Amino acid sequence: MIILGIDPGIATMGFGVIEKLPNGNNIPLDYGVVKTPKEESLPVRLALLEQGINKILDKYHPDEVALEELFFTKNITTGIAVAQARGVTLLTCVKKCGKLYEYTPMQIKQALTGYGRADKQQMQQVVASILRLKGIPKPDDAADALAVALCHAHTARFGGLFTVENMTRRKGQNTVTTVKPISSFRKEDL
Amino acid sequence: MIILGIDPGIATMGFGVIEKLPNGNNIPLDYGVVKTPKEESLPVRLALLEQGINKILDKYHPDEVALEELFFTKNITTGIAVAQARGVTLLTCVKKCGKLYEYTPMQIKQALTGYGRADKQQMQQVVASILRLKGIPKPDDAADALAVALCHAHTARFGGLFTVENMTRRKGQNTVTTVKPISSFRKEDL
Repeated sequence: MIILGIDPGIATMGFGVIEKLPNGNNIPLDYGVVKTPKEESLPVRLALLEQGINKILDKYHPDEVALEELFFTKNITTGIAVAQARGVTLLTCVKKCGKLYEYTPMQIKQALTGYGRADKQQMQQVVASILRLKGIPKPDDAADALAVALCHAHTARFGGLFTVENMTRRKGQNTVTTVKPISSFRKEDL
Repeated sequence: MIILGIDPGIATMGFGVIEKLPNGNNIPLDYGVVKTPKEESLPVRLALLEQGINKILDKYHPDEVALEELFFTKNITTGIAVAQARGVTLLTCVKKCGKLYEYTPMQIKQALTGYGRADKQQMQQVVASILRLKGIPKPDDAADALAVALCHAHTARFGGLFTVENMTRRKGQNTVTTVKPISSFRKEDL
């Protein structure tokens, strides 16, 4: 199964593609970032973002897509731009892959390190270690995207917590994470 | 010239299409809302929103699109959803119309009533009056969308404040409004 992890953003969107093997191992297929130039207007940047995401989707045909949930903690103006980019990201993904999931940063940390407040460095080392990478994946946004992809792979492995068909959000069945399927949409329905 | 005004939203997006005649008069061509069902997941709602916007764009082929700027004053969770919808709205519009503009609520009120703090009822009466409608346009989101379309029409009429080509934001050349072109993007460039 191919899983695409995404760390949404407008200037830099991180992506990480992994394959979850039947034996439970996860191998990295690709990771990186989609960047849009600051000089362009927001609509143009959104269009460039869509192009970049489509290239990834068309190359890897992921079975499932996992995204980081959005929180506004720091700058609300940046937050609005990121939210607009995230809307475009969801739209672009759902048109080519009907199975989208979202995880909070805390869920991702919990799933990968067993500790919801792990720091960035710890997380990156765990990602590199699970995927047997020679070094820390760079840039940070790509590492974050691999982390959310791995979080999704682990959650599915440990839990079988959800059936996509019934869209039920089931809480607390184990301590790894609560899966929040945000779409069980089939693109044929559009 | 055909102008499409949009009041962005996820549950209800208002739209208003007007034609600005060479004599300066503005006539209403269409107005209404695009609704997406609450029961659907966000990605599906975004896809339905895109479909709705495309229907409007394909029917009226607007020369320019004017949108309300986004402010988070009340509910930040709703605000995030609206921002994600607005991203999809910008993307969908820029792919079919390269001239997008945004206005703050205060600019819209200023342009239509001469008073930046006009109330909703005043605004709706002015919109109905300018467009010679028999009654107040309903629902509110459609009236808001007509208002932003009219704001854009007035601004262009009074000012010639901007050239789309140079993307310059020029301030304070008159008191009607400051035009903020958010895109002079040509869809051929994509």
